Amino acid sequence: MRSVVPDYLTEVLGDVEPDTSGEPADYIPELAAADPDRLGAVFATVDGMVYGAGDIDTEFTIQSISKPFTYALALADHGFDPVLAKVGVEPSGEAFNQISLESDTGRPYNPMINAGAITAHSLAGSAELTPPERVQRVVDGLSAFAGRPLTMDETVCASEMEHAHRNLAIAHMLRSHDILTEDPRAVVDGYIRQCSVLVTTRDLAVMAATLANRGINPLSEERVIPEPVVRQVLSVMSTCGMYDAAGDWATQVGIPAKSGVAGGLIGALPGQIGIATFSPRLDRHGNSVRGVSLFERFSADMGLHVMEVPATGRAVVRSNEVVGRGPDALRVLRLQGGIGFAAAERVVREVVDTAPAEYAVALDLTMVYSIDDVGRRMLLEVVRRLTLDGHEVYLVDPEEIIPEPDPGDGGRVTVVGHIDRAIHSRT
Amino acid sequence: MRSVVPDYLTEVLGDVEPDTSGEPADYIPELAAADPDRLGAVFATVDGMVYGAGDIDTEFTIQSISKPFTYALALADHGFDPVLAKVGVEPSGEAFNQISLESDTGRPYNPMINAGAITAHSLAGSAELTPPERVQRVVDGLSAFAGRPLTMDETVCASEMEHAHRNLAIAHMLRSHDILTEDPRAVVDGYIRQCSVLVTTRDLAVMAATLANRGINPLSEERVIPEPVVRQVLSVMSTCGMYDAAGDWATQVGIPAKSGVAGGLIGALPGQIGIATFSPRLDRHGNSVRGVSLFERFSADMGLHVMEVPATGRAVVRSNEVVGRGPDALRVLRLQGGIGFAAAERVVREVVDTAPAEYAVALDLTMVYSIDDVGRRMLLEVVRRLTLDGHEVYLVDPEEIIPEPDPGDGGRVTVVGHIDRAIHSRT
Amino acid sequence: MRSVVPDYLTEVLGDVEPDTSGEPADYIPELAAADPDRLGAVFATVDGMVYGAGDIDTEFTIQSISKPFTYALALADHGFDPVLAKVGVEPSGEAFNQISLESDTGRPYNPMINAGAITAHSLAGSAELTPPERVQRVVDGLSAFAGRPLTMDETVCASEMEHAHRNLAIAHMLRSHDILTEDPRAVVDGYIRQCSVLVTTRDLAVMAATLANRGINPLSEERVIPEPVVRQVLSVMSTCGMYDAAGDWATQVGIPAKSGVAGGLIGALPGQIGIATFSPRLDRHGNSVRGVSLFERFSADMGLHVMEVPATGRAVVRSNEVVGRGPDALRVLRLQGGIGFAAAERVVREVVDTAPAEYAVALDLTMVYSIDDVGRRMLLEVVRRLTLDGHEVYLVDPEEIIPEPDPGDGGRVTVVGHIDRAIHSRT
Amino acid sequence: MRSVVPDYLTEVLGDVEPDTSGEPADYIPELAAADPDRLGAVFATVDGMVYGAGDIDTEFTIQSISKPFTYALALADHGFDPVLAKVGVEPSGEAFNQISLESDTGRPYNPMINAGAITAHSLAGSAELTPPERVQRVVDGLSAFAGRPLTMDETVCASEMEHAHRNLAIAHMLRSHDILTEDPRAVVDGYIRQCSVLVTTRDLAVMAATLANRGINPLSEERVIPEPVVRQVLSVMSTCGMYDAAGDWATQVGIPAKSGVAGGLIGALPGQIGIATFSPRLDRHGNSVRGVSLFERFSADMGLHVMEVPATGRAVVRSNEVVGRGPDALRVLRLQGGIGFAAAERVVREVVDTAPAEYAVALDLTMVYSIDDVGRRMLLEVVRRLTLDGHEVYLVDPEEIIPEPDPGDGGRVTVVGHIDRAIHSRT
Repeated sequence: MRSVVPDYLTEVLGDVEPDTSGEPADYIPELAAADPDRLGAVFATVDGMVYGAGDIDTEFTIQSISKPFTYALALADHGFDPVLAKVGVEPSGEAFNQISLESDTGRPYNPMINAGAITAHSLAGSAELTPPERVQRVVDGLSAFAGRPLTMDETVCASEMEHAHRNLAIAHMLRSHDILTEDPRAVVDGYIRQCSVLVTTRDLAVMAATLANRGINPLSEERVIPEPVVRQVLSVMSTCGMYDAAGDWATQVGIPAKSGVAGGLIGALPGQIGIATFSPRLDRHGNSVRGVSLFERFSADMGLHVMEVPATGRAVVRSNEVVGRGPDALRVLRLQGGIGFAAAERVVREVVDTAPAEYAVALDLTMVYSIDDVGRRMLLEVVRRLTLDGHEVYLVDPEEIIPEPDPGDGGRVTVVGHIDRAIHSRT
Repeated sequence: MRSVVPDYLTEVLGDVEPDTSGEPADYIPELAAADPDRLGAVFATVDGMVYGAGDIDTEFTIQSISKPFTYALALADHGFDPVLAKVGVEPSGEAFNQISLESDTGRPYNPMINAGAITAHSLAGSAELTPPERVQRVVDGLSAFAGRPLTMDETVCASEMEHAHRNLAIAHMLRSHDILTEDPRAVVDGYIRQCSVLVTTRDLAVMAATLANRGINPLSEERVIPEPVVRQVLSVMSTCGMYDAAGDWATQVGIPAKSGVAGGLIGALPGQIGIATFSPRLDRHGNSVRGVSLFERFSADMGLHVMEVPATGRAVVRSNEVVGRGPDALRVLRLQGGIGFAAAERVVREVVDTAPAEYAVALDLTMVYSIDDVGRRMLLEVVRRLTLDGHEVYLVDPEEIIPEPDPGDGGRVTVVGHIDRAIHSRT
Repeated sequence: MRSVVPDYLTEVLGDVEPDTSGEPADYIPELAAADPDRLGAVFATVDGMVYGAGDIDTEFTIQSISKPFTYALALADHGFDPVLAKVGVEPSGEAFNQISLESDTGRPYNPMINAGAITAHSLAGSAELTPPERVQRVVDGLSAFAGRPLTMDETVCASEMEHAHRNLAIAHMLRSHDILTEDPRAVVDGYIRQCSVLVTTRDLAVMAATLANRGINPLSEERVIPEPVVRQVLSVMSTCGMYDAAGDWATQVGIPAKSGVAGGLIGALPGQIGIATFSPRLDRHGNSVRGVSLFERFSADMGLHVMEVPATGRAVVRSNEVVGRGPDALRVLRLQGGIGFAAAERVVREVVDTAPAEYAVALDLTMVYSIDDVGRRMLLEVVRRLTLDGHEVYLVDPEEIIPEPDPGDGGRVTVVGHIDRAIHSRT
Repeated sequence: MRSVVPDYLTEVLGDVEPDTSGEPADYIPELAAADPDRLGAVFATVDGMVYGAGDIDTEFTIQSISKPFTYALALADHGFDPVLAKVGVEPSGEAFNQISLESDTGRPYNPMINAGAITAHSLAGSAELTPPERVQRVVDGLSAFAGRPLTMDETVCASEMEHAHRNLAIAHMLRSHDILTEDPRAVVDGYIRQCSVLVTTRDLAVMAATLANRGINPLSEERVIPEPVVRQVLSVMSTCGMYDAAGDWATQVGIPAKSGVAGGLIGALPGQIGIATFSPRLDRHGNSVRGVSLFERFSADMGLHVMEVPATGRAVVRSNEVVGRGPDALRVLRLQGGIGFAAAERVVREVVDTAPAEYAVALDLTMVYSIDDVGRRMLLEVVRRLTLDGHEVYLVDPEEIIPEPDPGDGGRVTVVGHIDRAIHSRT
């Protein structure tokens, strides 16, 4: 049997292919010369499966798609405070190449506009790095996100350098505010090198999947950036990633995203998937025309919008019954599904409402699919309170979804692999 | 046993209580006279449980928190296009009372600033309504969100009317652009009445929970607005809800939210929970100081940030084994957890990789907790393709998580309540 | 003999007549219905001569041309400080109907944009006036400038009122900043009435001539406003009168000016002339197309640019000679021309350089054409110093161009009607 | 006798001396180290007299005061169109160091802000010049304005270069819009050299006097720039010279002016005087505190405001009488004062009103002080028309104020040195 995913991708590519509106970027000859008909799309799952259709192995320059990743490297290398002191997180509602500095501090509004991205580049790697070392840090970092060693397109790089007047203007302005502290030309040079890194649509999808996968590259399994950085980067992408079309994107697509002037476009859906598309013709915002259409389709077809309310699932408490009789009676709550705050709250409520008369109480986690930190803490608090109320508590947890459970002060729990063990231990 | 949730709320309220920074709104005497020490917080779950601590039943005026709900009513009453033609969805990066109209069309940037909210008010209910009828439509709508009949504070209303110069300015400007087509004073009058609706923190939490619960009030179980409207409203709240602090909120809290000048603050986390807080002292952005602190705690403590990558769960394919032998052999894939695109993709992959040699294949959904539209469609496509490959396919679905499954063209499936039925039917 | 001026005007009108570019204002039907081909121009001298060509007696609404005059009335009625506290004098570089308030105070940038003009209207007449009384004050004031009783076009007025949304917006915004303290609608109503006053091109030229003539109407010889107000109004017209085309106008025409949307355009050249033109077709700035052309011609042909360096005249000291001999010798300096600072300085220098040995010194003012305040003070200081140096000083001043000369502390002077008197008194 | 002017200057300096508010510029050590107590003022008349008081021979860097002069050189060297295509003339209402480019073309708003001044520097001298040659052209030009060879402060220059980030930003931005076509760093280098030229207060006054004197240096009598350039430069100074305080300056001082960050301030009153002051402490606009006070005093004390309505002088027609009788009768109009358009118009009117019955008519110009181009043309047209009406016309013009008068088609005039000659020639 063939997988349905490639078929789906092929179908959707076919649907958008006839749209030849827009124009490739033409501010340098190398971009203007791009084959405007190229079209590709890739899905990369958080466990490392990569599906693609179309031109997924053609290399093109990463351009602005490098911005969220370099911002992530800066946060990882320096911590949050020094980076936030120099680059804000507010949407500017302006085009990518506006200067957009805060009027008092000169701080760029966010890291997705050029001013912020140039600043973020200067913050990648330790402060002591020479400009070439910093470029190496960035290329290494991007390579870690992609899971393979990336290289630079020297021709594009040289050509960009000749047309870098606006970025030089921005960098000198940043220097005048001491947001940059190094030679502005060296920083712009490094930033242009960063933007000239060659990637394929496949690479971009893996990079996005690394963000979707809490910072761990799903192919190499390398942790590229810590989790709090991932959350920060995805948040900023969601409000500032699509420039002055941020609101349209947030409502119609709802996937944290970033586009590049060479035609690339990525989206990362936390915990689920990294997506990348490639089509060089751009709309007036500088976003790939067919890339935007593809993302609109993906979001609509697959319910990938972050504000999509998930389908209401089955009750987390699958059953609540008493096994055995008399002093041997065991109150068993069989839980199921994923347990976060909302589900844990329902378990708490069930226990409170039940006010079990039985001496022994078991929480059966066998069918629990996942549990997060707050869910675990809440369940353990239930255990503790049951203990304090005089109950003996069992956790049925064959696969150790809560490893080494510690209910804390005054709590006590017995972990068993099967509900029968709880029953038998009682009798 | 007492629930842990009220204890948690009480603890967090205690932590923020000493912070008496900020000042209540003072542009009208009624708001200035509010007891600045009031403090309350409520969680309302999507299945109707309400937890609160502090002053949760004190009534105060809803003010700007009415904005997302009235926008929702406008979208529900007119459909998307007419509303989007008159109110944009782009963050303006400006304070709430800036005029912020698009320079060419005069369209307000978004429905969370006053210009957009006044316009949204004028679009609630059918175009034929008289101004008092429109106010009634809005109050009825807000009441439906709250699950009880709400009333207006006539004193605040009268006082606001006397200080409505800026809103009148905005409304006349909108009228000059034909964004408003009615008498600007009547619209502002109606808008002020909308803002003067009295709510408790409990009401606000239920209203937020209605958004979190796909538009269905979890108490009354009434569908207040359709699902696509919910998504739109939550998206706009997430980018525009906190005015010029949108980026800070998006990164640090990450819950679609809206604040009101009387000290209310709501957040709605899709599929999980509605939250409301009440504390009248405001920061320079006009947001409740302690309200913001509470939300930062809630987000951090409970992993409620929308960009939080959910804990990686157990594999969706719990087991993949053959039951029986020879021609009676049955390939059984036991699935578990919630099935959206990402999980369905893993099932597809498992089937493809397995390339089952057995004639009969069963997908066991007994432990599946939830399934969304794309997940269902993908599983059914797997069924169809297996059929086409010559297999007989069973769906073990005791609770009809996929009701009336139709694998489509050429597909065929037998639904059974227990895996034994599949086995027995084979032998 | 016919005067050359009407011939000149007729010739220039003929030159611009073929230009039918631009469109009449069309935001109300009454303006749109104006005959677009009308064309007129009037020169009014500061001594009351009026020259015209074309449609100079057709009435049309004064519109924004009322702004400088109402600003003048406000300054005259309240003094400078209260008016400057509510309306600035800075060019805004924006179109006339922008709100353009200072961000902190809400003060309109200047009285030539609508926000400032509406505020100026509210400051005309004493603070106690009722709105109709204020309108009467303004109409009376405009009539005093024109030298005849002006009336209002009630049809235009009513129609403007229906389209006054933007002005109402502005007025409510001003009210919200307490720049206006009355009912914004009443102020806008009054402002619209002010703009609906009917004038002819002839009237406008006389109004401008009143500004050029130090505030005294050259026909009625009534002082309409004090001199310091004239200077203020002309200064503001020169920097803010032509909206966003201020710089072009300042360089190419260089005459303090104001245009109106009905096609009028005035210019006032201090001490020389008031000019008005009428042609309803407007350019994109809202200024009369042919009116602008006419002013460019007038400025170029007649050297009327305020930055035109005047032709260097003859020496102010026409002769410096000794009449008589021995102790009867009289040093005579014959002065000529107009004496301001620069000329007086040359007289001073001549006296210093001469260091007259003669006991008697005469300054002969017979051929002096004019003298201003600083010139008079400087000449009298020369007289005083000559006295202190031991000279006897005569002022030959047959027409009393310096009436009752007082050289101050220690100075003494004998005024005679003819130089012979000085000579004879000596012998 | 001592001149009153130095006494006046000394008095006014004494009045402002106690004001020690403000701070010297401190962005480079060399400016911060300036003696903040220095104070000087110089008047330079258009015929070359220089009066000064205080520190008038201390050298300091010219800074932004170079802007109007370099703009003048650019206009002189390239003509108006190429310069206007690259630098506008509109006030920007912004501080000097704002980028302030027109959003579509990237053209700086005016030559008084840095962006415009940098562009003007690049347009000084022919397009073929190398950067050092261009600097030489500018220094030579500034020297011509000052009437002595000026030099550069190399220390300030080097220090400015180290802090030129904002100017480099501006220049790169200009380069990105092709407003600059050369290497932005070379242009900024040249511009900084221009700003580092050393001048004294005396030099600045002479430079200003050169503008006041129609472009001719009153000391060297060299024509530095053509008259139309003077008008353009003074117009732009009057609207844009004092940055964001343009309106205050225009109303309160009313002298075209320019300030520099080293504490210099110049003003040029067309046809009258050049003024310069020096006092290093600056206000928040970057203008010299005491310099501004001095100019306010000068303007108020001496009536130097360009919008000051000149004192009404005596009638231009001093007498209108008939000399002799019968066929020998001669109508004599004795004219006096300065004759521009307004005065000539009165002469025309007198002739028209008189409708002289006498055959011979004489215009006696003996007491005419000055006459400009339009005045001359109008008088000659009167002569022509009198001829056509059958009169014989005499011009009494002993000092040839109208050299070689040509009344044009059909006109004829006899020039005599004294009215007696006209009488005698008739008898």
